[in-house]
Amino acid sequence: MIAKLIEKIQKTQAPVVVGLDPMLSYIPQGIMNKAAAEYGESLEAAAEAVWQFNKAIVDNVYDLIPAVKPQIAMYEQFGVPGLAVFEKTVAYCQEKGLVVIGDIKRGDIGSTSAAYAAGHLGSVQIGSKTFSGFHEDFATVNPYLGSDGVKPFLDVCKKENRGVFVLVKTSNPSSGEFQDQQIGERPLYELVGEKVAEWGEDMIDGSCGYSDVGAVVGATYPEMGRTLRRIMPHSYILVPGYGAQGGTAEDLRPFFNEDGLGAIVNSSRGIICAYKNDKYKAFGEAAFEYAARQAVIDMIDDIRGVICR
Amino acid sequence: MIAKLIEKIQKTQAPVVVGLDPMLSYIPQGIMNKAAAEYGESLEAAAEAVWQFNKAIVDNVYDLIPAVKPQIAMYEQFGVPGLAVFEKTVAYCQEKGLVVIGDIKRGDIGSTSAAYAAGHLGSVQIGSKTFSGFHEDFATVNPYLGSDGVKPFLDVCKKENRGVFVLVKTSNPSSGEFQDQQIGERPLYELVGEKVAEWGEDMIDGSCGYSDVGAVVGATYPEMGRTLRRIMPHSYILVPGYGAQGGTAEDLRPFFNEDGLGAIVNSSRGIICAYKNDKYKAFGEAAFEYAARQAVIDMIDDIRGVICR
Repeated sequence: MIAKLIEKIQKTQAPVVVGLDPMLSYIPQGIMNKAAAEYGESLEAAAEAVWQFNKAIVDNVYDLIPAVKPQIAMYEQFGVPGLAVFEKTVAYCQEKGLVVIGDIKRGDIGSTSAAYAAGHLGSVQIGSKTFSGFHEDFATVNPYLGSDGVKPFLDVCKKENRGVFVLVKTSNPSSGEFQDQQIGERPLYELVGEKVAEWGEDMIDGSCGYSDVGAVVGATYPEMGRTLRRIMPHSYILVPGYGAQGGTAEDLRPFFNEDGLGAIVNSSRGIICAYKNDKYKAFGEAAFEYAARQAVIDMIDDIRGVICR
Repeated sequence: MIAKLIEKIQKTQAPVVVGLDPMLSYIPQGIMNKAAAEYGESLEAAAEAVWQFNKAIVDNVYDLIPAVKPQIAMYEQFGVPGLAVFEKTVAYCQEKGLVVIGDIKRGDIGSTSAAYAAGHLGSVQIGSKTFSGFHEDFATVNPYLGSDGVKPFLDVCKKENRGVFVLVKTSNPSSGEFQDQQIGERPLYELVGEKVAEWGEDMIDGSCGYSDVGAVVGATYPEMGRTLRRIMPHSYILVPGYGAQGGTAEDLRPFFNEDGLGAIVNSSRGIICAYKNDKYKAFGEAAFEYAARQAVIDMIDDIRGVICR
């Protein structure tokens, strides 16, 4: 799956992923009202509003970008109807030719991780048929439980040609509380990075030189990104934290390899909520999807400026 | 919420939680066939079979125990229909008077953790109404992202009288890969334990002396349990790993305080799949729920033998 992602990055010349993390406060009142008229004030109405919002964004940016990253928490908060729209969003983005990175941050003991992997990247057997619950192309995985929590995801990736991004150094302010703790000569995130390299060793796609086991490293920590880039030379790095969380294009340079590949940068709020940003407010709420498109164009420009190709 | 859990533990004299982690391979063929006859070979059929299986177990054990712990991965693997049955199971167990611990192991950056917390322990506002997606009483939380990933859960717990169990030392074989790494004078799990104590400090319920912030520590690591019991004197410890994973009743002793409280022990497979165990196979597949009841009775007996009261 990493080869497909890279092919799309090269085609679009855009190492960019749009985070589909809709909060109700991002959604224009007109969409909310229409959903409420149809479904009343209900979880179904919220889910429908999220869906209409997502669809408009995707329809207006899909030709510019290789991938999207729906954050499942933003759907899960609306219970079962929310998760139905998560699945619908995944399917729609795939129809549009986008690679879908499910930002699910799952991780558990072996048999339980196997169930998550089946539900998100693989399939379950029911009688004579197989079914794929959420069928993302990549998923983010939490490493706190160690190898036997991660490996069931890798088994499914190998079998079904899927990929993972393992949390190594997250973008949030208190990520250092545990991740930066010094273990002998190096911090925990480096140890996790070494494990990511090891887990991905036999999953390197010869056609592109990268592994289906990638890593999450926040744009807000560029120096750590530089070190981790070296420790995990064959791992793609999914970089959150650009834009709204404070990371700049200059901060992104260390995450890329000299071939101009090796990283893909996420922006969520900065794109899908662009119309609330001073820079794009001329679009107005009613044209939120065009504001999002312009924000994607500007983000791609910004990032192209710093990566060597 | 911890006071309610303790009250129920004292009433049942059973510091025991039954893990509702149904795999399709646990479900008797008769239940599967009936579900398939109604829904065809589909995710809906698998979900319906899980529901009928759960209901039979719950109906036969609810009077013996204080709490259940559905593992959401086992439902999520069946996509949206699976998650609908997760919610239905939570609601049914609450109707039966059980405390429900959602084993969800979520954890993300601040705003995203807030969405998970709203969906699982709190509520979302839609127009003039509020809705609770999955409405568990407790949830398990992954600490890898640090305080700002955990605190949104605590905010919801304070507001809605709910609780969390934070992963500290998990029961699986490779949990030591990161959790046991030495940081200065102590391993990472102790540092996480100290944080759990700190997070829970202002959430201690005066009526019972315990905090709504608990911890997960595997029965498979009793010595570490002893240390963590001391580090987190006011935290309830949710102890997985008893039974099928190898932990014995004797291993459980260090997890309890001298008041006989302080820990609640989970068994999943050992109960819900008891009918496949040599000890209970006389019940037969058709009486799987009675095998589960007997296994609960035996587990409670086993554990009462080691805790001081």
